[in-house]
Amino acid sequence: MRTFIVAAVLTLFTSSLGILTTVSQTSGGYKYDSATVPFLGELLKLLVSTFLLWKESNTPKLPRITTDWRSIGLYPIPSIIYLIHNNVQFATLTYVDTSTYQIMGNLKIVTTAILFRAFLKKKISKLQWMAIGLLTIGTTVSQVKGCGETDCRSLLAAPIQGYLFGILSACLSAMAGVYTEFLMKKNQDSLHWQNMQLYVFGVLFNMIHLTMDDILGAYEKGAWWSRLLVGYNVTTWLVVLNLGCTGLLVSWVMKYADNIVKVYATSMAMLLTMVLSIYLFNFRPTLQLFLGILICCMSLQMYFAPPQSLVDLPTQPTTDTAEPHRT
Amino acid sequence: MRTFIVAAVLTLFTSSLGILTTVSQTSGGYKYDSATVPFLGELLKLLVSTFLLWKESNTPKLPRITTDWRSIGLYPIPSIIYLIHNNVQFATLTYVDTSTYQIMGNLKIVTTAILFRAFLKKKISKLQWMAIGLLTIGTTVSQVKGCGETDCRSLLAAPIQGYLFGILSACLSAMAGVYTEFLMKKNQDSLHWQNMQLYVFGVLFNMIHLTMDDILGAYEKGAWWSRLLVGYNVTTWLVVLNLGCTGLLVSWVMKYADNIVKVYATSMAMLLTMVLSIYLFNFRPTLQLFLGILICCMSLQMYFAPPQSLVDLPTQPTTDTAEPHRT
Repeated sequence: MRTFIVAAVLTLFTSSLGILTTVSQTSGGYKYDSATVPFLGELLKLLVSTFLLWKESNTPKLPRITTDWRSIGLYPIPSIIYLIHNNVQFATLTYVDTSTYQIMGNLKIVTTAILFRAFLKKKISKLQWMAIGLLTIGTTVSQVKGCGETDCRSLLAAPIQGYLFGILSACLSAMAGVYTEFLMKKNQDSLHWQNMQLYVFGVLFNMIHLTMDDILGAYEKGAWWSRLLVGYNVTTWLVVLNLGCTGLLVSWVMKYADNIVKVYATSMAMLLTMVLSIYLFNFRPTLQLFLGILICCMSLQMYFAPPQSLVDLPTQPTTDTAEPHRT
Repeated sequence: MRTFIVAAVLTLFTSSLGILTTVSQTSGGYKYDSATVPFLGELLKLLVSTFLLWKESNTPKLPRITTDWRSIGLYPIPSIIYLIHNNVQFATLTYVDTSTYQIMGNLKIVTTAILFRAFLKKKISKLQWMAIGLLTIGTTVSQVKGCGETDCRSLLAAPIQGYLFGILSACLSAMAGVYTEFLMKKNQDSLHWQNMQLYVFGVLFNMIHLTMDDILGAYEKGAWWSRLLVGYNVTTWLVVLNLGCTGLLVSWVMKYADNIVKVYATSMAMLLTMVLSIYLFNFRPTLQLFLGILICCMSLQMYFAPPQSLVDLPTQPTTDTAEPHRT
């Protein structure tokens, strides 16, 4: 039940993140440097985690903290994977158009399930595999370019490198997720202590990333810290706040639920964003969005509903494997 | 196993029917009156059934034949339903465009399942209901008009009458199917005798239909029997032959399998036709066709695979309804 609530809140936050980002970019006023937003998000998460750990250490039940360097040394790895992932994403976009890129992004659902099964040794039944396949198909269906829409490049028209980078990107995204789950569940350490370690490296790698961009851009726009907060408006701050909350919720899901819950939450959030965009940004509702939502809802039931509620099981355990219908 | 083979052959025949019809209409030469084709199809089925019944009556095991008028009186009903259905289809097409019409046609999958459950009292598990929903969605996805295609009228643009007629059409189609299954399974009569009765009325109602058309058209094209066979070429005869075989296979499925098997066979045939059209008529392959095929294949498994093979069941029967994942 607690998982369900957290997953629902994560869905709402992820969905509103997309909408807030669109609003913050389109509403008039100062332009801000969007690369500084994730840095502030990581910083916010670090501050919140530090505060929560401090509060926890003032309770009678002291938080479990492992300060072994061998353990701490595992925490920069997600940040490193995300850094590589960012660059691969960038490379992918030089080969394929944005809609092909968006559709290939759904591959990460399948790669996450595969790595989840392979490395975390979680059991996935045949029906659950089908549910994961349907979630991937459902999100893809919702993104199919409709009749009369512009930007109609064929999906098979991109060079092979584009697809290979897309697959690599899906694998990296899955690796980061599955590795984080492994890290969070590896020991009984306090969630806030684990988060602190993750976000220290998150802040660090974001700083490196920003500095690298400045160096590559020959400081044309000045140093990143001088651009920080320039052009920020209320919605930009809401984006930072949202990014922080979403990150903390994902950490909770990784420790107390799993990657599949996260994958469902983010997929449902994507569909919710599309539905809300119809009202907020006057997007045209499409048949494929409606069908995609139906498919994903069925997938959700297939994955999480107790199997006993889905199929009529014999009251006596039998070895009968006959088809349910006369042949 | 026998059901599977018959269903597979039915799929192939139904699929080739669509292709043969396209070929027979597009290949040069004489134009024929397409309304005469179903009449010849019914006549062919009647002749084949009569021959098979005659052969069966020469075997030691005599065919069971009920000649009670109360029983025979039930056989014109499918023909009557089809006649009404034809007119409703015609009415629907005056309100909606052909692609909306085609998409609404998928509704008959759901209506068939509902009537199958309600009137034939067949059990359908929750997973099987989802499979039926997915089959409907899958066939619809495959028909979604792609990017850049012409004829882009919005699906919600047609007048309400169009949708009501579409729903009525789906209900009539389901009624005809479910009633035929009831008729074929009602007693242990010989299949050929049952077919003979069906097709006598089939031939009769087709003749009435053709005569009515002639009267409404004020005999501008002459009487239908004078147009019969005019302009027929080899592919037209193949269409007649195919129509006959498909009808006989459907009868077999109704008696020895059920409406759901038929619905799957015809849906798969529709997808197969679309795939073959890519090669034969240079249709553009679309992402939505690929996704639709994947959805329908999963649906097929969900409906017909033994539930034990899909979910991990406890070896001991338990009343535990806990979620398979930690919450």
